[in-house]
Amino acid sequence: MMAQENDASLPVSSLGIAGAGLIGASIAARAAEAMPGVVLKVFDRSYQNAAHVAGMWSNATVAESLDELKPCDLVFVATPVGAIAETVTALLADEDRRLVVVDTGSVKGSVVEMVKAGSAGHARFVPGHPLAGSHLSGPQAASPELVEGRVFVLTPTGETAPDALALARATLDVLGARVVVTDPTAHDELLALTSHLPHVVAYALMAGLDAREPDEARDRLIAGSFRAQTVFAASDPEMWADILIANADAVERAARDFNGEVERFVRFARAGDKQAIMKRIALIRDMRKAIGD
Amino acid sequence: MMAQENDASLPVSSLGIAGAGLIGASIAARAAEAMPGVVLKVFDRSYQNAAHVAGMWSNATVAESLDELKPCDLVFVATPVGAIAETVTALLADEDRRLVVVDTGSVKGSVVEMVKAGSAGHARFVPGHPLAGSHLSGPQAASPELVEGRVFVLTPTGETAPDALALARATLDVLGARVVVTDPTAHDELLALTSHLPHVVAYALMAGLDAREPDEARDRLIAGSFRAQTVFAASDPEMWADILIANADAVERAARDFNGEVERFVRFARAGDKQAIMKRIALIRDMRKAIGD
Repeated sequence: MMAQENDASLPVSSLGIAGAGLIGASIAARAAEAMPGVVLKVFDRSYQNAAHVAGMWSNATVAESLDELKPCDLVFVATPVGAIAETVTALLADEDRRLVVVDTGSVKGSVVEMVKAGSAGHARFVPGHPLAGSHLSGPQAASPELVEGRVFVLTPTGETAPDALALARATLDVLGARVVVTDPTAHDELLALTSHLPHVVAYALMAGLDAREPDEARDRLIAGSFRAQTVFAASDPEMWADILIANADAVERAARDFNGEVERFVRFARAGDKQAIMKRIALIRDMRKAIGD
Repeated sequence: MMAQENDASLPVSSLGIAGAGLIGASIAARAAEAMPGVVLKVFDRSYQNAAHVAGMWSNATVAESLDELKPCDLVFVATPVGAIAETVTALLADEDRRLVVVDTGSVKGSVVEMVKAGSAGHARFVPGHPLAGSHLSGPQAASPELVEGRVFVLTPTGETAPDALALARATLDVLGARVVVTDPTAHDELLALTSHLPHVVAYALMAGLDAREPDEARDRLIAGSFRAQTVFAASDPEMWADILIANADAVERAARDFNGEVERFVRFARAGDKQAIMKRIALIRDMRKAIGD
């Protein structure tokens, strides 16, 4: 593709990607489609991953260090959650720059706190989270479809600069993401229920099956539904260790309520209380129908 | 469709269906394709459901009572789990008949025990379970594809008559099901892990979400993966109350191990023990990969 000239109608003229995994590479792939005139710089601790992403597009180059991203208008930080705060803090160390940093981590509260404590430029940090979940990982699995048309949550705090938030939002609009704004705590509590605990549940279901001796009957009796419900059990260990640790408080609360509900069903079953189980399932079925397919 | 003449190459010349829900209707639909010359009689406590199924096929009639199925060569009992034992027992009350009865319940051990205690003809009962799970229910959702090419588990006991098992197997072969033979206890323990507990898990995940106030951000932040993992939360209350009660022992054991595994992840997360979580996820990921997609 021929590089286009700088397009003054775009909110940014240069974009950085720090962390060239599934999400960083998907943002780059979508940017190549939606804003081909923009200059892209890609940094990853793995030169090979950065080169893979930079190779998508003639306006993209590999950055040899994180510092090379600092002159960009906006940088997406798409490292594992455990490395986000230090990466954002390093990028925003120079208070006088105009750089805006948006992260893509699945946990917001603890990252916001760490950036606030560590960086004088934290007002230019816009905490973000694209709901682009996949049990796949790595830049090879990237797709612009993980960005275009998908929800991208932004969780600004009272200290986020309004112009930084506006730039992040305008850039995401051009990328075709559906921006939803909420606060970091509400985000983390909700994601604990809808994503973080469900991953733990997939691990625990899978672990239970493996305690049995594998045999042919076992393998033939595993329904497709079990495979669907445990698909997350094949997710990336480092990514999920980081997420569970960063959101441990909310995950613990969600798990406590969840385990209590499981125990309630077991207690009703032990007691043979058919009416109690039917009443509970009927109520939950209505909840499930309300969220649609 | 014209009724064909009786086909001497088929294992049965008359088939009964007791319980015209999703599974009974699917067996009837597949029988209409695979053995159109066979006479089919359908009984359901709802005349409307029985008539719906009998209407699929010119060789099928509605039975006014369960007794009218007794002269059949083979009857599939596809009632809710809580009604299977009494239905099978009633059908096998006359010891001198040749009738073979195959049930389709998701729990085997407790049904086998009840039939053994209640029926002099229990040697002609072949406990069965088609792995045709769906969160849908009722004869309108029926499809021959829930039988053809799907696993149909048979769990004979030491007292099951060999010719009864052979007739059940031959009939299922003609229907195109993939027969797997195992024992009732092994079946129930495995299904507790792969189906019964996963349903409870779907209920408990869904119940956790509903404890929050619904709002627009909540609804937009519910990932598709959460919907996929909770699809069972919309399953039939009576069917699942029966299953959980009938397999309460195995479900309780599975739930205890499962909750312990969830708590272990929470403990590691609280302690910030990244290495422990990564090691555990990596192990579970290998288990998940081993069962395939």
